[in-house]
Amino acid sequence: MLTPPKALLFDVFGTCVDWRTSIAQAGEALGQRLLLPPTDWLAVADAWRAHYQPQLESVRSGQRPWTRLEVLNRESLDEVLRDFGLDAVPAAERTAFNLTWQQLAPWPDTVPGLTRLKTKFIIAPNSNADIALSVGLARYAQLPWDTILGAEISHTFKPQPATYLLAAAALALPPTEVLMVAAHNADLAAASKLGLQTAFIPRPLEHGLGQTSDLRPEHTFTYGATDLLELATQLGC
Amino acid sequence: MLTPPKALLFDVFGTCVDWRTSIAQAGEALGQRLLLPPTDWLAVADAWRAHYQPQLESVRSGQRPWTRLEVLNRESLDEVLRDFGLDAVPAAERTAFNLTWQQLAPWPDTVPGLTRLKTKFIIAPNSNADIALSVGLARYAQLPWDTILGAEISHTFKPQPATYLLAAAALALPPTEVLMVAAHNADLAAASKLGLQTAFIPRPLEHGLGQTSDLRPEHTFTYGATDLLELATQLGC
Repeated sequence: MLTPPKALLFDVFGTCVDWRTSIAQAGEALGQRLLLPPTDWLAVADAWRAHYQPQLESVRSGQRPWTRLEVLNRESLDEVLRDFGLDAVPAAERTAFNLTWQQLAPWPDTVPGLTRLKTKFIIAPNSNADIALSVGLARYAQLPWDTILGAEISHTFKPQPATYLLAAAALALPPTEVLMVAAHNADLAAASKLGLQTAFIPRPLEHGLGQTSDLRPEHTFTYGATDLLELATQLGC
Repeated sequence: MLTPPKALLFDVFGTCVDWRTSIAQAGEALGQRLLLPPTDWLAVADAWRAHYQPQLESVRSGQRPWTRLEVLNRESLDEVLRDFGLDAVPAAERTAFNLTWQQLAPWPDTVPGLTRLKTKFIIAPNSNADIALSVGLARYAQLPWDTILGAEISHTFKPQPATYLLAAAALALPPTEVLMVAAHNADLAAASKLGLQTAFIPRPLEHGLGQTSDLRPEHTFTYGATDLLELATQLGC
């Protein structure tokens, strides 16, 4: 018989919020306000996100010291704007646009699902976002976290083992009593290897209509559900 | 003109919750259930709390490594029960009684006050409680924190400077944009020295009817209010 978890940790970008559409919409608004040339803002969002893993890897590998995601995103944005011929965007506008990562729309099931799950379990993000970004995003998207955990606790990024183990330790729980929820196989595979329980929630539109990755679980995970509301039902909430 | 704060940090024991009455009530219930000899449980609560500063000091001074408050409280409880002739309380009951620190009643203005303050400011505890204890207490007392900060972030206890400075840093804010709220002069004096804004809220019944300390502000603090609702009004919430 499976020990029920005491706490649920969540991936956030993609799993709880739709970063791609929100970034593209904010870019569209920016382009209209600044009279920028016509731009494919979904492509800008994808390009910005493409910088994500290489940036995280520079910290994970020890090549550069711990750096908050908000700072890494801001650096990446300069490169993306240059690549799209948008050098005209002033620095203050770039910093404001970078704050869009705190203003991402939740998927329709996210807030009602988290609210149900919170009735029975401690819920916290275990995201690569820093605490300040996570707090801002939670306030914007009304994510009812009990506390913010994640990369900043361990000063490295997922899927490094410390990110999962120190999140469990911060709750004074053994990994086996913690359930990691994500839309990404690699995230859950790393958590599973460390003894955490796992739940796969597909987000087939995270990367748009042409998404080919993470459409289904590719390993044996503890739970699988179509969304957070179904997961809440499975967990008796 | 004073820069408005972006985030409010709160002392919790005494400032947000009435630890003394709650601990005494839980002790009373324990005594009845275990048929313990008649005991002054308010005196037990006071004695337990009297161990608090010496225990914290053992970590602050470097005499012992970082240890979570829940562990320190559990150690102190053994001494308190011995001093009150209550050696008959079994270990499992002691551990359960120790969890009362996660089940403390908020003062009447605490939840409505925090709820109003949260509409305009990030709110977080900056308590000597560890994250797990703070999460449990927030769930029990319905304290609507945006995230949990406090001693565990800095691995030392207030009033060590790191506890205030790392709480502000976790929110990516300079100390001057953070307001520390407490019912204790020493806590606010330490925060003030580091550049944080400060608000004194008296809790004249924290130590019972005979309380003689912290009845009024003894330094110049940024704000002073009779309770968190009045503070919310002063801050325009």
